[in-house]
Amino acid sequence: MAHDALKREVCRVNKEIVKAGLVTLTWGNASGVDRDAGVLAIKPSGVDYDQLAPDDIVVLSLASGEILEGTLKPSSDTPTHLYLAQKFPESNGIVHTHSTCATSFCQAGMKLPCLGTTHADHFFGTVPCVRALTEDEVREAYEHNTGVAIVEAFEELGIDPAQVPAVLQNGHAPFAWGATPAKALENAIVLEECARMALMTWQLNPKAELPRHILDKHFLRKHGPGAYYGQKN
Amino acid sequence: MAHDALKREVCRVNKEIVKAGLVTLTWGNASGVDRDAGVLAIKPSGVDYDQLAPDDIVVLSLASGEILEGTLKPSSDTPTHLYLAQKFPESNGIVHTHSTCATSFCQAGMKLPCLGTTHADHFFGTVPCVRALTEDEVREAYEHNTGVAIVEAFEELGIDPAQVPAVLQNGHAPFAWGATPAKALENAIVLEECARMALMTWQLNPKAELPRHILDKHFLRKHGPGAYYGQKN
Amino acid sequence: MAHDALKREVCRVNKEIVKAGLVTLTWGNASGVDRDAGVLAIKPSGVDYDQLAPDDIVVLSLASGEILEGTLKPSSDTPTHLYLAQKFPESNGIVHTHSTCATSFCQAGMKLPCLGTTHADHFFGTVPCVRALTEDEVREAYEHNTGVAIVEAFEELGIDPAQVPAVLQNGHAPFAWGATPAKALENAIVLEECARMALMTWQLNPKAELPRHILDKHFLRKHGPGAYYGQKN
Amino acid sequence: MAHDALKREVCRVNKEIVKAGLVTLTWGNASGVDRDAGVLAIKPSGVDYDQLAPDDIVVLSLASGEILEGTLKPSSDTPTHLYLAQKFPESNGIVHTHSTCATSFCQAGMKLPCLGTTHADHFFGTVPCVRALTEDEVREAYEHNTGVAIVEAFEELGIDPAQVPAVLQNGHAPFAWGATPAKALENAIVLEECARMALMTWQLNPKAELPRHILDKHFLRKHGPGAYYGQKN
Repeated sequence: MAHDALKREVCRVNKEIVKAGLVTLTWGNASGVDRDAGVLAIKPSGVDYDQLAPDDIVVLSLASGEILEGTLKPSSDTPTHLYLAQKFPESNGIVHTHSTCATSFCQAGMKLPCLGTTHADHFFGTVPCVRALTEDEVREAYEHNTGVAIVEAFEELGIDPAQVPAVLQNGHAPFAWGATPAKALENAIVLEECARMALMTWQLNPKAELPRHILDKHFLRKHGPGAYYGQKN
Repeated sequence: MAHDALKREVCRVNKEIVKAGLVTLTWGNASGVDRDAGVLAIKPSGVDYDQLAPDDIVVLSLASGEILEGTLKPSSDTPTHLYLAQKFPESNGIVHTHSTCATSFCQAGMKLPCLGTTHADHFFGTVPCVRALTEDEVREAYEHNTGVAIVEAFEELGIDPAQVPAVLQNGHAPFAWGATPAKALENAIVLEECARMALMTWQLNPKAELPRHILDKHFLRKHGPGAYYGQKN
Repeated sequence: MAHDALKREVCRVNKEIVKAGLVTLTWGNASGVDRDAGVLAIKPSGVDYDQLAPDDIVVLSLASGEILEGTLKPSSDTPTHLYLAQKFPESNGIVHTHSTCATSFCQAGMKLPCLGTTHADHFFGTVPCVRALTEDEVREAYEHNTGVAIVEAFEELGIDPAQVPAVLQNGHAPFAWGATPAKALENAIVLEECARMALMTWQLNPKAELPRHILDKHFLRKHGPGAYYGQKN
Repeated sequence: MAHDALKREVCRVNKEIVKAGLVTLTWGNASGVDRDAGVLAIKPSGVDYDQLAPDDIVVLSLASGEILEGTLKPSSDTPTHLYLAQKFPESNGIVHTHSTCATSFCQAGMKLPCLGTTHADHFFGTVPCVRALTEDEVREAYEHNTGVAIVEAFEELGIDPAQVPAVLQNGHAPFAWGATPAKALENAIVLEECARMALMTWQLNPKAELPRHILDKHFLRKHGPGAYYGQKN
């Protein structure tokens, strides 16, 4: 019943989001999924990253949310992670941060369109901004309903979460995901950098946009059957 | 008569405000209060943080301001710390910085409204901007009257300083406080980050605001009887 | 057939672009040219900078692009480097980054005019912004045609690439070059800093410009027969 | 004839301007004056800060500019340092940088007014922006005439250089000075931070200004006969 490799990797990625400059204090958490074992492993709530060790990571049933391993309380954002992991079956890693620029987009209630190839290399189009929850949704099950609102938005907009692996939640902060916890971290880093560059780009030219054929080229040279970037393609 | 633990903690928090990137040169100071002993301990004036040691910390009577321990002059801002500590009985730590973004708010004479959950997690609403002192107030007792103006503002606005543990002083710089010196440091860090994000948020959307029910949810899941964030709740 | 010194220098400069803060993740690459040997050496595609060693550097024929040494795939941007190295005979080093501010200029589709002596010390006038490629150019040979568009722009604008050793590509990111890989790195650093300062300068004064006689003075005191800056002049 | 203590201090301060984040590449230099010995010591031109050693520092006659010690060429900005040292007799240290925010003010051709107490603690009012040199001044003796223009501006504006120890040169970059090289460094750091905060302050409130009585209070509690900040007052 031990999930040592998963806990080590989730612990490592939680520490990496701090090293990447995406986290102030304890505002952030990463989780990882082992679909064969049917579990999600996540950071405990409010623990300092410096002191975080693999054995502090909490392991839950992916289906029910029941705690299977760990003596600490899981992150208060766990219901969001669980719901996203259940509904986005290609995402085995989820990273939540309050990174400065992406969170500013959330606070402004704005989506992040693709303004250049840096964005296109990782996100196949606009990263959406999901609506703030209603009073009822907040009262009933705030963190769970955050996941529900995200999944609904991707369905309504017809966006494949494997092709646009991040979201900006209105008034709150971003979530990113990926095929592994490490890929989710990478997408959280890219989201922050693209948000930072969008702020500067719009200062220079509020009408900037990337032609669609360049967006397609950059995403598809890194992803899918025609990819030729990196050593594995 | 020794207050070793308090002096060590106040020394440590003074060094931490530098590590947190909130301080240029020697512009900042932290104090701590031991209410049972009736003392306030504070950084000496104009001493380099690198060389600061626990024995350099100056200990004063909380009631009278009389120096009880220490051979160095206390921070020139000591009368402000003393007055706030006397009037805000739940605040046993006070941190003053000239951190870049929060100080820019002070220079602009602007309060910091709650624009997102990062703010709501720590401050239960707008962080007020307190008026600049008059010529008479400056001449008579500048640093003491700075404290007086802050306390008056919280009373006039009906704000509980334990729920909004920071203030922006017009033309000057921020003060933050908390139940311990470490909590005051944390609030100073949050204030700076929220001010940074507000600058970016308003660049994107000058009318941004967080719905009241989300503000309530985030503050109350971390504070008070219904809190469920962290390991202690 | 070994090119050890070139590979060591190209490896070193690739690591230096990270240390200089110009690179997020693996977005960047440096190449170096040995014109006597007729070769170009370049970073492999998608390899972490931490783990990069001189033997990972790929050596290609400068004339044909054929791989002469190395077991890894060269950077996907290799055809751009090759074309620039072929057409800019004074440039024996090329650095490509997605550095934040220069890339924001690219995304905005804006050239970088000379606003001060920092710029004038390194670039003899405006750094041009080269048009985005057409659908046909992207489909046929994207990376090669990127080089073609850059070279065409310098010819059309009558700019000597040895005097303005950098370019901003619309929608993408900057390239910089120089007499050596180290000089190309230096120019990439200067380009980023000048772009950062231009953003701030225009926030203060949208009509700022440097008088032509100051631009001439600063460039020519560092470059050409009348130079007197540094120890070698 | 050796000036070891001066050379060590000038070397140290040159390295400190890099540590303080005020320098990119080799854009910056510090000098120090020993008025009893009648000498000015300055960084050599274009030497890396990492490799700079006290024996590399060049010592010149303060009166004539003749090189007295050192085998390297002095900084190309030496004539500016010399002229300022000659005309500002209370300034025994001068620091020149291209620090990002202060240089952006120079590029914008804008002076830096006092917007808060951080500024008032170090500069007794507006830091002026000195006009760009004419074609004749540039051709004849660019670096010397830079100093002449600065001194003329202070005379015309009636500013005491000991009370406003810095200047912004139009199109170029800032100079700061002080009673010692270390004080000049401190003023260069403060200038950069005040310029950074002014950019943010004006983004929030373009009409921000500090009341005169607060400016007086803050400058005079740190400087002159009534000072009470720090351990020496």
